[in-house]
Amino acid sequence: MNYAMIWKILGWMLMFEAAFMAPSGVVSALYRESCGIWIAASMGICLAAGGLMVLISRPKTKRIYAREGAVICGLIWFLYSIFGALPFYLSGSIQNIFDAVFETASGFTTTGASILSDVEALPHGILFWRSFTHWVGGMGILVFVMAVVPLAAGGSTMFLMKAESPGPSVKKMVPKAGQTAGILYKLYIVLTAIELLLLLVFRMPVFDAMCLTFGTAGTGGFAVLNSGLATYPISQQVIVTVFMILFGTNFTVYYLIATKRFKEIPKISEVVTYYAIITVATVLITINIHNMYPNAGLALKDAAFQVGSIITTTGYSTTDFNVWPAFSKWILILLMFCGACAGSTGGGIKVSRIQVAVKSLIKELDNAIHPNNVRKIKYDGKPLEHNVLRGINVFIVAYFFTMAFSILLITVDNFDLETNFTAVVATLNNIGPGLSKVGPTANYSCYSNFSVCVLIFDMIAGRLEILPVLVLLSTHTWKGGSLFPGRGKTRHQAGEEDEALLDEGF
Amino acid sequence: MNYAMIWKILGWMLMFEAAFMAPSGVVSALYRESCGIWIAASMGICLAAGGLMVLISRPKTKRIYAREGAVICGLIWFLYSIFGALPFYLSGSIQNIFDAVFETASGFTTTGASILSDVEALPHGILFWRSFTHWVGGMGILVFVMAVVPLAAGGSTMFLMKAESPGPSVKKMVPKAGQTAGILYKLYIVLTAIELLLLLVFRMPVFDAMCLTFGTAGTGGFAVLNSGLATYPISQQVIVTVFMILFGTNFTVYYLIATKRFKEIPKISEVVTYYAIITVATVLITINIHNMYPNAGLALKDAAFQVGSIITTTGYSTTDFNVWPAFSKWILILLMFCGACAGSTGGGIKVSRIQVAVKSLIKELDNAIHPNNVRKIKYDGKPLEHNVLRGINVFIVAYFFTMAFSILLITVDNFDLETNFTAVVATLNNIGPGLSKVGPTANYSCYSNFSVCVLIFDMIAGRLEILPVLVLLSTHTWKGGSLFPGRGKTRHQAGEEDEALLDEGF
Repeated sequence: MNYAMIWKILGWMLMFEAAFMAPSGVVSALYRESCGIWIAASMGICLAAGGLMVLISRPKTKRIYAREGAVICGLIWFLYSIFGALPFYLSGSIQNIFDAVFETASGFTTTGASILSDVEALPHGILFWRSFTHWVGGMGILVFVMAVVPLAAGGSTMFLMKAESPGPSVKKMVPKAGQTAGILYKLYIVLTAIELLLLLVFRMPVFDAMCLTFGTAGTGGFAVLNSGLATYPISQQVIVTVFMILFGTNFTVYYLIATKRFKEIPKISEVVTYYAIITVATVLITINIHNMYPNAGLALKDAAFQVGSIITTTGYSTTDFNVWPAFSKWILILLMFCGACAGSTGGGIKVSRIQVAVKSLIKELDNAIHPNNVRKIKYDGKPLEHNVLRGINVFIVAYFFTMAFSILLITVDNFDLETNFTAVVATLNNIGPGLSKVGPTANYSCYSNFSVCVLIFDMIAGRLEILPVLVLLSTHTWKGGSLFPGRGKTRHQAGEEDEALLDEGF
Repeated sequence: MNYAMIWKILGWMLMFEAAFMAPSGVVSALYRESCGIWIAASMGICLAAGGLMVLISRPKTKRIYAREGAVICGLIWFLYSIFGALPFYLSGSIQNIFDAVFETASGFTTTGASILSDVEALPHGILFWRSFTHWVGGMGILVFVMAVVPLAAGGSTMFLMKAESPGPSVKKMVPKAGQTAGILYKLYIVLTAIELLLLLVFRMPVFDAMCLTFGTAGTGGFAVLNSGLATYPISQQVIVTVFMILFGTNFTVYYLIATKRFKEIPKISEVVTYYAIITVATVLITINIHNMYPNAGLALKDAAFQVGSIITTTGYSTTDFNVWPAFSKWILILLMFCGACAGSTGGGIKVSRIQVAVKSLIKELDNAIHPNNVRKIKYDGKPLEHNVLRGINVFIVAYFFTMAFSILLITVDNFDLETNFTAVVATLNNIGPGLSKVGPTANYSCYSNFSVCVLIFDMIAGRLEILPVLVLLSTHTWKGGSLFPGRGKTRHQAGEEDEALLDEGF
């Protein structure tokens, strides 16, 4: 294991985090808030710690392998959550350090679960940082850096991108991974700008519009009012509904639009299914809840908002869906599991994985009737490769194991099943609010420090789609090489044949 | 599709059901109960209906294929549940026909979920029939008939047995399926006899001992007292605990014991894991609940009983575990999913499937670190075949889909999440009691007729491990041939190459 190189990359990434904090510093300066000095202090700490890590690590080789890549992907999110908690903690906005890390992890992973009961009491600079973490985390921390800095040449960085990008497989839009990252970020920025503009046109205050746009773009869910989005005008709620759903769409669609290849869009079956699910769920819930509303239009608006918010794992709310009938609540829980499209900023199992699972089930049923028929599962017209299918199956297994074990751990706080179950589902799928004690009008502050740590783990595991984080827990990962930054081994023993990931300069 | 042959076999099976009712008739005669005439009437109806089906069906060929086999396996359990409900309904013990079918399906599938609030009010003959369905269903209806009657020669009947026997794969103990069925039933009868004898030695009343033994042997869960097993002496509770766990053990173990191949037993990793899980769960729960009890011994007794009862999916209870802490309750829920060993009478996902899932997860983690390592998953020393692995993955997918969709359907009754969730988990895994409104001291009578039908489906789907029942729902299954008994086609069109299942006389 090339520990020295890991230290070095993590150090560089930490210095980037200081840069990410800068806009929040500017906001607090504009509002003349005292929290500005604490944001500046946090930036200083990140720069110092990151710089130190880069300086003291002297890798004998810059070559890293799949193992190092997996470790970096996992660690970076924990590191960002811990150092990103500094502005909250130092400014006194959140007094408990575990809660501060929870809030930050919730931001970067675009979960949007909060331990704050009164967000309106926070200064603007801190609120901006809280929402900005959504925007950074939405497309992926490493992917962002790759898009901006030519981290490494060659297609080998695809591995890093794969770990951070949601969904079973990232299609390379163009041959080079760095270029694909660049295109993704351009599309991301354009969509973000359009939403911001629309919200401003419909007269949302500038600060609210920026924060809510960050939250929508990253499918995060942090709001700036205690009432969530309930008190904004209907027009603004509709804009957010539409953009939540757009950011949950496979970004390939926007690339095809940008390159004017419109005819190829309906062939992406994941996107078609995604919109079909949204339509059916919205209609069913509207019918189920319409007698709780003065008219069907308002019921439809709230149903569509909540469906869009949950399936894209954003987690905004315009109403307390905890009081909805059991039927509507269970549809929302199913949407929590389903999640958005692969290649979007949303979380969850992903529509394409569900599609493939259904296809393999139908194939097996067919097999039971005609045992001698051999047929390959096709997806979007192409036969599905065995590796992809296996990956999806293992993901589902890892997903349910993580869920079951996490719930077991947080039962130490002795809350009811609905609270514990939905708390884990909402964090593992990066949604935000659950039901009961962690419902849309409540928050996660009821949990103990221990449970908060478990939920932090779940948020990061969910964001990275579990396996990269489980890799960190495997003792097998940490064999060979020295943990201390100064003494990097030239190569790790077992990996001679492994694909080199980064063999060029950082 | 050879419909005529399906009608004929189902007709024969229905006549067997009349024979299964006979012992209950004898019991009611011994107790001089008036319900005896209704049991006799039910037998008459089964014989008449079954006889008619056999008489009017004139298959042009006796040859049937995988498709027909799958359909027979699925239908037989629905047919048995409907006709088996006659004694309950005709005698007036259960006034609602849906509830009566639920109770019977719960019996045959060895679920043990009840809609009765006062079982002590039932006559002995009816109570005996209720418990006897557990014993018949435990080893499988078709398997029983195969063991007794030489249904068909040749190894092709293995397919029928596979559908009814719990677990990913049935090992043939001996080359012929009929013989294997015979050995299984001999072991089943011997174990049943030992438990009955022990309970009688420890002075349980004869009627109670017989009913509870049937319930333990089939891992069913119907008791004869409203208090479940709470009021029986500790010695008798301990005997039931031990036998529940023994009936959840892979029966291969008993075959090895009977043939004195003791050394091979520790090599069956499923059994080792099964006992390890039971031990760990019992210890954890004992620690968690010990301050609710006067002494640790009593806590251990109740913990072991409930763990044994839930993991084997029996569903007996000696205490109201609904009031246990969240930690212990979640362990019990995890055990509900886990289930017993393959090749036992228990339900659930099965220990061996969980083992394989964990192994494939570990393999994938290893793969993330060393992408070029190619390694096959081994189970009990042998490399696992691709087919078995795929079957397990599809099973898990089908399992969670059935669960999610069933919960959605029963939310129409608008109960809380804990009730709906555990009701489906407890029926799909053939356990019996859930939590909250369907907890160990409550029953399923709160659900509407519609939800009762959904739960009947879940019980049968769980007992047959889902796929054989989903086959019934596929329109593809029903193509070709005529549904009416008199006009059997010689062969179905698509299945020319399919393996013939039964080509010899019935």
